[in-house]
Amino acid sequence: MNRDRELAQLQAIDRELTLLEQNSALLEWDEETQMPSEALEGRSDQISLIQGYIYDKKTSSLMGELLDALEEDGVHCTDVQRAIVRTYRREYDRTVKIPRQLVLDLSHAASTGQAAWTGAREQSDFSLFSNNLEHMIGLKRDYAEAMGYGEHLYDALIDEYEPGMSSSMVSAVFDPLKVSVSELLSAVAAQPQIDDSFLYRDYPRDLQDSFGRMILRDMGFDFSRAQMAEAVHPFTTTVGYDDIRITTRYDEPMVSSPLFSTIHEGGHALYELGASNSTTRGTVLAQGVSMAVHESQSRLWENVIARSEEFWHHYYPRMKDLFPEQLSDVTEQAFVRGVNKVEPSMIRVNADEVSYSLHIILRFELEKALISGDLTVTDLPAAWNDMMKELLGIVPATDAEGVLQDVHWSAGLFGYFPTYALGNLFGSQFYRTMELSIPDLGRQIAAGNLRAAGSWLNEHIYRHGSIYPSLELLSRVTGEQLDPQYFIDYLNRKYAAIYHLD
Amino acid sequence: MNRDRELAQLQAIDRELTLLEQNSALLEWDEETQMPSEALEGRSDQISLIQGYIYDKKTSSLMGELLDALEEDGVHCTDVQRAIVRTYRREYDRTVKIPRQLVLDLSHAASTGQAAWTGAREQSDFSLFSNNLEHMIGLKRDYAEAMGYGEHLYDALIDEYEPGMSSSMVSAVFDPLKVSVSELLSAVAAQPQIDDSFLYRDYPRDLQDSFGRMILRDMGFDFSRAQMAEAVHPFTTTVGYDDIRITTRYDEPMVSSPLFSTIHEGGHALYELGASNSTTRGTVLAQGVSMAVHESQSRLWENVIARSEEFWHHYYPRMKDLFPEQLSDVTEQAFVRGVNKVEPSMIRVNADEVSYSLHIILRFELEKALISGDLTVTDLPAAWNDMMKELLGIVPATDAEGVLQDVHWSAGLFGYFPTYALGNLFGSQFYRTMELSIPDLGRQIAAGNLRAAGSWLNEHIYRHGSIYPSLELLSRVTGEQLDPQYFIDYLNRKYAAIYHLD
Repeated sequence: MNRDRELAQLQAIDRELTLLEQNSALLEWDEETQMPSEALEGRSDQISLIQGYIYDKKTSSLMGELLDALEEDGVHCTDVQRAIVRTYRREYDRTVKIPRQLVLDLSHAASTGQAAWTGAREQSDFSLFSNNLEHMIGLKRDYAEAMGYGEHLYDALIDEYEPGMSSSMVSAVFDPLKVSVSELLSAVAAQPQIDDSFLYRDYPRDLQDSFGRMILRDMGFDFSRAQMAEAVHPFTTTVGYDDIRITTRYDEPMVSSPLFSTIHEGGHALYELGASNSTTRGTVLAQGVSMAVHESQSRLWENVIARSEEFWHHYYPRMKDLFPEQLSDVTEQAFVRGVNKVEPSMIRVNADEVSYSLHIILRFELEKALISGDLTVTDLPAAWNDMMKELLGIVPATDAEGVLQDVHWSAGLFGYFPTYALGNLFGSQFYRTMELSIPDLGRQIAAGNLRAAGSWLNEHIYRHGSIYPSLELLSRVTGEQLDPQYFIDYLNRKYAAIYHLD
Repeated sequence: MNRDRELAQLQAIDRELTLLEQNSALLEWDEETQMPSEALEGRSDQISLIQGYIYDKKTSSLMGELLDALEEDGVHCTDVQRAIVRTYRREYDRTVKIPRQLVLDLSHAASTGQAAWTGAREQSDFSLFSNNLEHMIGLKRDYAEAMGYGEHLYDALIDEYEPGMSSSMVSAVFDPLKVSVSELLSAVAAQPQIDDSFLYRDYPRDLQDSFGRMILRDMGFDFSRAQMAEAVHPFTTTVGYDDIRITTRYDEPMVSSPLFSTIHEGGHALYELGASNSTTRGTVLAQGVSMAVHESQSRLWENVIARSEEFWHHYYPRMKDLFPEQLSDVTEQAFVRGVNKVEPSMIRVNADEVSYSLHIILRFELEKALISGDLTVTDLPAAWNDMMKELLGIVPATDAEGVLQDVHWSAGLFGYFPTYALGNLFGSQFYRTMELSIPDLGRQIAAGNLRAAGSWLNEHIYRHGSIYPSLELLSRVTGEQLDPQYFIDYLNRKYAAIYHLD
């Protein structure tokens, strides 16, 4: 049966939804970068209005009918059409399965929860937040029940951020990762520590900005299709077919934090830039496919490429030209070691590349136990501290630098944390395939030709946008399933050199 | 009969339309200030989508029914309710009266017309644009016929920008203005010319920016509810209840151009800031009531206040502190004379305060004749040059510096020009009332207390937003009808002093 009419209808709705999502992204971008402070209330009204339009269109009975009609066998025959139907089916089911009252309750709990969390964190007193957390966990269980799940309630929550991923799949890759990273951390701890004090000297912000923009340009960040501004929190957002925005901030005490943050967001932006092309333009597919794949691209650029010896072989002389006094006594090798210093610390967002995964594994284990009921909210702070001790060998002195450090749980973002570490795994697996495909990749990077990597990533990952689900994309690109060994090997090889391990 | 239900329905639609208009304004603001160049096509799609929503809501059959119901006697009893109904009735009628095909033709003619005009202007050849202009004039006549008009077709076009105003009402004030300004120009021309060369020295842009922001702050421009950025063209826009944005540019060769442009836009912004208050918030009334009243507020600040002797008595020492070298040989009096130099010139946007009105009167006369058919497009360039000679005593050497200088006609904006000069008339009439009400106004300004003026304007003009039509507002504030003599007296008094006339 010919379904051209239904396809055309879905495509028209898709185009409208794409424009509305971009519009909503612009309202948020502007809020973070330009909006005067008193305009906040009016801005939430504006965002709510647009989000209301989006919700109505995604959940309309027309959408339900179109999806039903198009899911009949053999109707939508191209990958692109199949992917559009798949994407809206997910969103449609997600919204129609959840009772309206639960949506309102979750939204209200997130709003009051974040206020309570802010207060609790300021006073470093978990008890001021525990009732809210308890309530939120109950709602997230209701949500998982309503959505349906495979083995564990928690699976439904992970699936929201990383479609197709489950709790046992995550455990299967996190368990070996935990063992290997712990061993590597112990080996590093036995070596003399790296001196990175030169990173805290005074680096003028306009020069930091020029240097960051030069690297972005070299990466292929096209300033005629993308833009960078300053904001309190770094993020990437898509506000048009040819309009990707990233933010950075320069008031960090450490020169490398804003730089690597810029490169990280630059990686997200390259993915979004490549995802919007003649095949996907104006559709829901013109964006990265999942949190983990997105994070793989940002971390691949930030850590694998931009913290490598090869990268700084090209860029360190340029950095030294910009900051001759600040770096007068710092060799290229000392600089590379400085930006790769490993030191377990309390705060996830400040963690180095090695210990970072352990912060995530801790949160994953605790989330799983909270949702299943194996861990009570009352016991959470002690469980957090015990696990910090076990995994990182350090114990938070206060709740603020422990269990209260992240906003996620107060906002109801259970199942989100694992995608950060999964990004590292996807990233090194992609990178290994790229290395095999570009034998002189290291030399290209050392010569400042970052486009060699950028073009390969665009060809194999970016340009597909959301056409293939994340695990299918991984196996199409690498020919293999997700395997943590690539990331483990990468860390072991790199830090053996940095820390002169045997 | 109780119409609470209809009122509530109209208020809900009004609120939604207000948010959509703000959203559309943000899309345009961002396009001018931040958007990467390649994003233009996607941005027009976004704006068209939102404008489509606005159009549908303003012209829905529900809107028609609500307006009909609410217009019955005694139903909407407050000024605010009456004004909301009045405003949407205008927009509803305007859209339902115009055939859809004419709307499309006008939009197409504006788009092709502007392209043709750009080319013609670049080559300074009117003949490359004349067919487009001919076509546009025909469409504007059709538009006026469809809208209906009083005495002249052209009345329908003026009414679009300045509700309630007609061609003969404009003539009644422009005719005496033309005579008086011409006399004043002759008197000035007989005096030695002012030296303003110091305004073209090198003034660092960041200091220009600080100085402009200081004056805005003093005027009452609240940076927690408003924002300024750089753009190619200066403009003011309202992107939220508490979110007014203005733009400026600093690459003018003359230090005073960006400064007075900033103050001009600041005046528009103060009006919009004051128009959004507890009475009007979230309604279509939370904005300036008409082009002429808006322009009265920008020009009142720019010219009447900020080019006055009193103003510079306070600010010149501050300016000299910022630019000690550039102004070392310039006295306060020489500075004030410099920023008030009168010199007839070809280009309207660069015109001084005296000759400006003549540029407008010329366009008004020509528009009227073109629409009525008394002047053909073929004869337009000669008519332009003749009138320049008659009014300003100078003749353009090329079409580019003559008849092709403004974008308005190519875009179909017939009836728009008069509002610029009407703004001067409204402004001086308001100012005169303010002077009578604040006897020491001059001394307050000379002491840097600009808030004295700002508070009065807010109380008498800004806070009413669009509640009263422009001519009603004028008579409520001043107790009189529109009278050009106030502006004429103001110019004669001021320039007699500046140019040492008898």
